[in-house]
Amino acid sequence: MNSSTTAPNGHRSAGVIGATGTTGVELVRLIDGHPSIALSFGTSREMAGRCLTEIDPSAPSTSLRHPSQVDPASVDVVFVCLPHGASARVVEEMLDRGAPAIVDLSGDLRLSDPNVHTQTYGSERSEVLAAEAVYGMPEQRRSEIAGARLVANPGCYATASALALLPLAEAGCLPSMTYIDAKSGVSGAGRAPTPTTHFCSAHDDIRPYKVGRVHRHVPEIEQTLASAGAGRPFAIVFAPHLVPMERGILATCMVHGAGLDLDGARRLYDDRYADEPFVTLLADGDTARVRAAAHSNRAVVSLHPVPDQDVLVVACAIDNLGKGAAGQAIQNANLMLGLPETEGLRGF
Amino acid sequence: MNSSTTAPNGHRSAGVIGATGTTGVELVRLIDGHPSIALSFGTSREMAGRCLTEIDPSAPSTSLRHPSQVDPASVDVVFVCLPHGASARVVEEMLDRGAPAIVDLSGDLRLSDPNVHTQTYGSERSEVLAAEAVYGMPEQRRSEIAGARLVANPGCYATASALALLPLAEAGCLPSMTYIDAKSGVSGAGRAPTPTTHFCSAHDDIRPYKVGRVHRHVPEIEQTLASAGAGRPFAIVFAPHLVPMERGILATCMVHGAGLDLDGARRLYDDRYADEPFVTLLADGDTARVRAAAHSNRAVVSLHPVPDQDVLVVACAIDNLGKGAAGQAIQNANLMLGLPETEGLRGF
Amino acid sequence: MNSSTTAPNGHRSAGVIGATGTTGVELVRLIDGHPSIALSFGTSREMAGRCLTEIDPSAPSTSLRHPSQVDPASVDVVFVCLPHGASARVVEEMLDRGAPAIVDLSGDLRLSDPNVHTQTYGSERSEVLAAEAVYGMPEQRRSEIAGARLVANPGCYATASALALLPLAEAGCLPSMTYIDAKSGVSGAGRAPTPTTHFCSAHDDIRPYKVGRVHRHVPEIEQTLASAGAGRPFAIVFAPHLVPMERGILATCMVHGAGLDLDGARRLYDDRYADEPFVTLLADGDTARVRAAAHSNRAVVSLHPVPDQDVLVVACAIDNLGKGAAGQAIQNANLMLGLPETEGLRGF
Amino acid sequence: MNSSTTAPNGHRSAGVIGATGTTGVELVRLIDGHPSIALSFGTSREMAGRCLTEIDPSAPSTSLRHPSQVDPASVDVVFVCLPHGASARVVEEMLDRGAPAIVDLSGDLRLSDPNVHTQTYGSERSEVLAAEAVYGMPEQRRSEIAGARLVANPGCYATASALALLPLAEAGCLPSMTYIDAKSGVSGAGRAPTPTTHFCSAHDDIRPYKVGRVHRHVPEIEQTLASAGAGRPFAIVFAPHLVPMERGILATCMVHGAGLDLDGARRLYDDRYADEPFVTLLADGDTARVRAAAHSNRAVVSLHPVPDQDVLVVACAIDNLGKGAAGQAIQNANLMLGLPETEGLRGF
Repeated sequence: MNSSTTAPNGHRSAGVIGATGTTGVELVRLIDGHPSIALSFGTSREMAGRCLTEIDPSAPSTSLRHPSQVDPASVDVVFVCLPHGASARVVEEMLDRGAPAIVDLSGDLRLSDPNVHTQTYGSERSEVLAAEAVYGMPEQRRSEIAGARLVANPGCYATASALALLPLAEAGCLPSMTYIDAKSGVSGAGRAPTPTTHFCSAHDDIRPYKVGRVHRHVPEIEQTLASAGAGRPFAIVFAPHLVPMERGILATCMVHGAGLDLDGARRLYDDRYADEPFVTLLADGDTARVRAAAHSNRAVVSLHPVPDQDVLVVACAIDNLGKGAAGQAIQNANLMLGLPETEGLRGF
Repeated sequence: MNSSTTAPNGHRSAGVIGATGTTGVELVRLIDGHPSIALSFGTSREMAGRCLTEIDPSAPSTSLRHPSQVDPASVDVVFVCLPHGASARVVEEMLDRGAPAIVDLSGDLRLSDPNVHTQTYGSERSEVLAAEAVYGMPEQRRSEIAGARLVANPGCYATASALALLPLAEAGCLPSMTYIDAKSGVSGAGRAPTPTTHFCSAHDDIRPYKVGRVHRHVPEIEQTLASAGAGRPFAIVFAPHLVPMERGILATCMVHGAGLDLDGARRLYDDRYADEPFVTLLADGDTARVRAAAHSNRAVVSLHPVPDQDVLVVACAIDNLGKGAAGQAIQNANLMLGLPETEGLRGF
Repeated sequence: MNSSTTAPNGHRSAGVIGATGTTGVELVRLIDGHPSIALSFGTSREMAGRCLTEIDPSAPSTSLRHPSQVDPASVDVVFVCLPHGASARVVEEMLDRGAPAIVDLSGDLRLSDPNVHTQTYGSERSEVLAAEAVYGMPEQRRSEIAGARLVANPGCYATASALALLPLAEAGCLPSMTYIDAKSGVSGAGRAPTPTTHFCSAHDDIRPYKVGRVHRHVPEIEQTLASAGAGRPFAIVFAPHLVPMERGILATCMVHGAGLDLDGARRLYDDRYADEPFVTLLADGDTARVRAAAHSNRAVVSLHPVPDQDVLVVACAIDNLGKGAAGQAIQNANLMLGLPETEGLRGF
Repeated sequence: MNSSTTAPNGHRSAGVIGATGTTGVELVRLIDGHPSIALSFGTSREMAGRCLTEIDPSAPSTSLRHPSQVDPASVDVVFVCLPHGASARVVEEMLDRGAPAIVDLSGDLRLSDPNVHTQTYGSERSEVLAAEAVYGMPEQRRSEIAGARLVANPGCYATASALALLPLAEAGCLPSMTYIDAKSGVSGAGRAPTPTTHFCSAHDDIRPYKVGRVHRHVPEIEQTLASAGAGRPFAIVFAPHLVPMERGILATCMVHGAGLDLDGARRLYDDRYADEPFVTLLADGDTARVRAAAHSNRAVVSLHPVPDQDVLVVACAIDNLGKGAAGQAIQNANLMLGLPETEGLRGF
């Protein structure tokens, strides 16, 4: 790996392509507090030369650069925080220009099946690139990520949902259809001002949107579960909701027909997550909530068996900007750079 | 019916027992704006002699009276807004003292089966009283309510859930188990200051609680559905969540196995609710949200069929203090007093 | 006055020009609940033919019409809810087309001095029109409003500030400079989605803006106070703040040098507001708060004398969409149409 | 200094007395992320043996101990986070038991004049202890703090107000009376559930409280300004407000008669704060807001001169739990322990 000239002695260096989005700002904030990674550059096409605090007053005071004026070969890792459709092309360019390691936070390289990708995103991408990309969920692919040059960082809903259901899929207990009732804070809708993100619309409201199988994270969740379950297909019915809070996702998953008795679910999850630094499995009677995960890289999971109906409700809370985006990207970069997995992250 | 001496000419008069709770204040507010019902008295044991605005600065400026000092025979209708366990006894006393009509907003008289009542509430009640009480959901029992002396006003979650599922239960399309993922604003937790209702706990959070079949509204929903479905039992798995908003409930109901094709659900709901003044059935593609129901007596319903999984998601939004409590109580009182059903209410 | 053909028997009829803005929707909502005024039309250039609920799901279900297709002569009163700069021209056109009475909710006709208007708004207007317009603060100009054909409805900050300071100005106790620290909910910024109104910016924040003498309501407040004080000029230093709530304004006014003793301020305000139906003067020790005024036409005033520093702090809370806009417009229309001043309004 | 046995090699160790309050939890959180200070113990009388996450799910997973079972001589610094009235006595006990350094976060030892203390807090304290305590505002007393054994950590409102006004007081430009219109998030009211902190009261509201000279921080601000201004007395008229946000304070200070021209204020503040790591002075046209300070130890200051009225408005935003409490306590401890002043803190 290259060592950046701007990083302090012994530090690794990082660049953030697309630093002004919600996820980009959170990445710059996390890198700013990371003991072993220093920020070499954050880029923006429209804000080049200006300060990141103009976008978000709580951001570190970082001068933004135009992407054409940064050298991806000079840093140890590049984070690409661009919208899907635009990201894969930039990832390719960054690799061509010598980036030694890349974490792509978009959806462009998450779905391995080209047809599913096209149906879901409707955009072009290099299938060679897609084939190289490792899906960046450390709880499922830790060693692959550690050896990867290119990681596709999971989506926020997909992370919460997969962590809620992985133990069941791996144990062969997941039924063919699972319902996920998911709730997201408004930062999940991005920084663009729209009627939906207007304070006077989001405040004092909760509403579902894209109910069914139309949200782009549905095939991503299904892919993760299928790979966990030895290829057996699982269908997700997904009902995301917009909640009047800034950060956080709660995925309430309703599993009907897992066939687990009262202790079975507990043992399964206890065993599966015993060594996971960022998954907190709550005791019986406690419930996962966004407040326990916000401003951290934690995923908090609670189990709610309803044995007389053969139903298991699993709730998983994360920070959509933390474990659901920038935090997980740092976790992946730590693995790729040979740093302790938890460094620079809160919640373990 | 008696005519109250304090009501203006041609007006009906009402008393509110327990006017300082969240529901009591909302009732006083609705009566204050009702063109045909005037408030004769609002009572409070602890605040007698003081003004309701001390409790809630947005309440009408009403002087509170001690319940022993009011005459229930002097008004046309008495609303009882006491906690469950305390309410049935007061209802009985009010009837003994001559109250011509009563709407009880507690859970004391909602469940017709004495055993289910005891298991759910663990409290004593007169079974004679319970047998007389009509369950106050006008969409299901309009004519019974109109002829009743005593109405048990439904619970907030129970109202939203039942209105979402009634057409399916009546048509014999409801499967044996339905999952309801419900979301409530903080006023649903009452006025008592607790760690849960502290701003710094409820704000920027969402969390499930009492997941499974333990919430007191579960048997109430099941009773309504069973009565709608010719006695066939339906089980509910219920996951209520606390949402950082003041008012509102959203019930997102996941029905698996209704066997309805794409148009079937639409026709069923269109037919069922065509003449209901307070049920707004949204067009395809639109989603029920709390903002559409808050500060009104409206129930807003949207349908989200997922045909390839034989799933129908039905969302229903109400104001927990409106259609979920005080608004529905007024609707019931209008029916009992022979007034137009929609009078004094918003949302039709 | 004309009688609209669409209004029920005995009702007056109203039209709303620009019904889709924050203020327009609130007006339609208030008219919808008004016992003596019926809505004949609400207009929108961009949304003609569509339903107002598409803009705001809590609005009445009103079909919008193009302004060229409505007849202002067919109604009893026209409310013009257009942005400043665009409004005066439309008011003129509506009068030319026969509108019998108009309430203009913009800033176009509020400032009587043409130079001050030009400096403040930088826009053209008919000075003949401006000379005819009566400034619509009933607490100051009730009889003029009752006889007017054209009323300029006051601004939200201007209403709260003037009601806090009017008694002092009229009594000759207002010093030459007064500081107003004002706080507004986000609906005051309008419906347009901007970075400022994004939930993730306004939430969990408070910030001042346009501090000093640059806000457009400063000359409006000064004009009201000067007219109250026999023409003596008063200067305002104004610090408005954006607060994470939907509705409401609180004006905290710091008056240094009024020379009033402890009881003097109390007597002054008691006398001045004794007969005002919408001004609630709180008792000593109580404080004006937005919650006491929201969703009503009330202005709530509290007095906080600091005698050893010769300071009087006066706080006034209103709903910026109520007494600060649509509510006051209805109050003005009630006066113009000869209806009871409080009809259709809450808070008295 | 003692070296704690539980601290990692080279680390300093700390104890927190009263770890379950709002401030205590924030201190534990900051120590958890501090690179050179490790937590030896956090205490609670009522929660001994239980986990801090039971109080706040976002807190580090720390087991609480009874204060009688910890050894204050075993750590390098003790933070005392008890209510005023209870704190001074415990500080004394901790010193007696060998605590080498103490930061007291209560109001017990802030006011140097015994009479002012008694009038303000009405509680007993050791005047010897009070005489030893250094007022812990590093921007005013950096070197004294570095040499102190006992530091009285400033109040939240007092910190924001003093940082807004210090340059003026020091330069002799502060008039005899200054008005401070302050706004606080709800965490400033503590963790106790009360009607005021109930979500349904604080949400969608803003209200003043304790207006005038009655808030306990008034004499603290006056003491700081008097010491900065060579003993000349300054009076503060103070209007604190409760704002619906979790964290943050904004102090909007209205200074009338400073006699500074347009550039004078800018130069004064530029010079004064040039070397202060945690004071961010904004450029002309920008305004201090809570979002720029929350979750950091930053104080953000903006200047708003109104020259034609000889008024200077100064706004200062801090996090009430950060620079207003726990963050400043860490800053003080860093100074006392000889660590870099900014270590473990965000915002510089």
